[in-house]
Amino acid sequence: VGTVVPLDGKQTDHAQSDVRAAFDVLSDLVGQDLARVNKVVLRRLESQVALIPQLAGHIIASGGKRLRPMLTLATARMCGYEGDRHINLAATVEFIHTATLLHDDVIDESDLRRGKATANSVWGNDASVLVGDFLFSRAFQLMVDDGNLRVLEILSGASAVIAEGEVLQLMTTNDTETTEDAYLRVISAKTAALFAAACQIGAVICERPRAEEEALLSFGRNLGIAFQLVDDALDYSARQITLGKTVGDDFREGKMSLPVILAFARGSEIERAFWRRTIQEGDQQERDLDKAISLMEKHGALYDTVERARHYGAIARDALGLFSDGEIKAALSDIIDFCIERAY
Amino acid sequence: VGTVVPLDGKQTDHAQSDVRAAFDVLSDLVGQDLARVNKVVLRRLESQVALIPQLAGHIIASGGKRLRPMLTLATARMCGYEGDRHINLAATVEFIHTATLLHDDVIDESDLRRGKATANSVWGNDASVLVGDFLFSRAFQLMVDDGNLRVLEILSGASAVIAEGEVLQLMTTNDTETTEDAYLRVISAKTAALFAAACQIGAVICERPRAEEEALLSFGRNLGIAFQLVDDALDYSARQITLGKTVGDDFREGKMSLPVILAFARGSEIERAFWRRTIQEGDQQERDLDKAISLMEKHGALYDTVERARHYGAIARDALGLFSDGEIKAALSDIIDFCIERAY
Repeated sequence: VGTVVPLDGKQTDHAQSDVRAAFDVLSDLVGQDLARVNKVVLRRLESQVALIPQLAGHIIASGGKRLRPMLTLATARMCGYEGDRHINLAATVEFIHTATLLHDDVIDESDLRRGKATANSVWGNDASVLVGDFLFSRAFQLMVDDGNLRVLEILSGASAVIAEGEVLQLMTTNDTETTEDAYLRVISAKTAALFAAACQIGAVICERPRAEEEALLSFGRNLGIAFQLVDDALDYSARQITLGKTVGDDFREGKMSLPVILAFARGSEIERAFWRRTIQEGDQQERDLDKAISLMEKHGALYDTVERARHYGAIARDALGLFSDGEIKAALSDIIDFCIERAY
Repeated sequence: VGTVVPLDGKQTDHAQSDVRAAFDVLSDLVGQDLARVNKVVLRRLESQVALIPQLAGHIIASGGKRLRPMLTLATARMCGYEGDRHINLAATVEFIHTATLLHDDVIDESDLRRGKATANSVWGNDASVLVGDFLFSRAFQLMVDDGNLRVLEILSGASAVIAEGEVLQLMTTNDTETTEDAYLRVISAKTAALFAAACQIGAVICERPRAEEEALLSFGRNLGIAFQLVDDALDYSARQITLGKTVGDDFREGKMSLPVILAFARGSEIERAFWRRTIQEGDQQERDLDKAISLMEKHGALYDTVERARHYGAIARDALGLFSDGEIKAALSDIIDFCIERAY
């Protein structure tokens, strides 16, 4: 692990506790529903094949924030929903997310996720691939149980887009020629598509006007982009360690995330040679992560990655304008800040 | 590759051409529909991410028999179907099948499929896993396009069962204690569930009485079991080479298929020590495949695996009894013989 520096000098313990509070407020507002979602998830993990609930239970219990299912619960509530369908659909969203995490960890050869051993490091890649397939299938069964064709279209479409995004990311990995536009296409697909679908279905199950559906889709999509941008900055930041994660995973995997793209674009020819050696050729020495972080600092690459996130966060906030003020809307607005300010 | 022996002494060139003819008859009967299915498959492979149609097109074009989609087309026709829905649904079935093949080849670390390089050997495991995920998602989108909830339930349920079967197979691999019953559970899930669903939806889209639906489910399920049993016998047979496949893949992977289970159960303690070393511990020498095949021959394990297949084939044939005689029914009956007699 290299020496890590904060993303800028502005963070205070106070700001940190504010954004933490924002997350807790949303958690509390949907808390009862979320407890029901967790029950559905555990129940639908059941299988006569014991390895399936073991392995899937390991990753599902490994301390994820449940942010995506919370978005489905909260947007449904904001739209005035009073039925039960949002429970199963939030569980569906979590199943899709978990399936992609299992496959991501196999692709990235990760040993740790949120500070705990990954499923692939405990049970092997083969089991992780196959249990991921099972979770995808269970997600589809859950949405079929819902039975609404619009919801089915949205969620099956999001799944296909996520898979396309993952393949696109594979093709940009180790490619220092990757542009910011190409990177945006990757994260729009692999991350933002599920955030968007999770929020959109909140309006769909309430049969709200198309404009509200589109507004929530836009909210989710832009929040998802902001979330991933900050994730990618955090991967080179000291904050990562306090979140129980390791620093530099993306660097070691040769991922062309925005901090690298900006540092490369703004760098000298000598610096570009460094990026080509470490990212493109994968030839990394012990001090290279430190060097990478110092080049990012020199060019403001991490700071500007978070600045870009603020831009998408602002779009997400405006997308909420259509909805009446209330505690859920306020909490969704604050969750944008949580997603961005957790960088500090 | 070891010395391989025929599964029994009965095969003749004549018998071989008879069963080949049975396949061609069914192919001809559904030929026009199958051409439309192939078009849908190619169209739905399209993606802005070029690697997806490249990789998926490679495996889809690699000479598969299209047996599963043909079953959907044929059963729908036998039920008197005159619409278009069977085309998309047959394509869905082929997408699910292809997705599982991509993941299977990653799990098995296969280099060859039907005599051609596997996708994972050309593009790597990561791309194969992710494009497999894409194909699963496309399959779900295709079935959502169909829009019938019964069909969605059947196909999404089959997908979950397939994934369970694959995990169960992983758990029996290298385990010489595996019973014939456990093996049957594996192949019922990983292979027969998709055959069953492919046939059942033929009746569902025609809104035939439940009894006919159940009959086609039974036909497909038992045909699928017979098909997999013969596949597992072929893996130790000379016929495999003429089909463009290699001999002994299952042996090298430590799969507990029925030929091994029978040879182990019927073997002496010395022979069981051989199976434990080669299958359980994976310690294989150059002549071990020859030895394995000769032990199977000694105990009639390959012959009896095909005999077991005949049993399930007979059940499949009787399941067709409910339907009026006609050329499609005759072709479906003959396809049972094709699946079994291709062993010779």
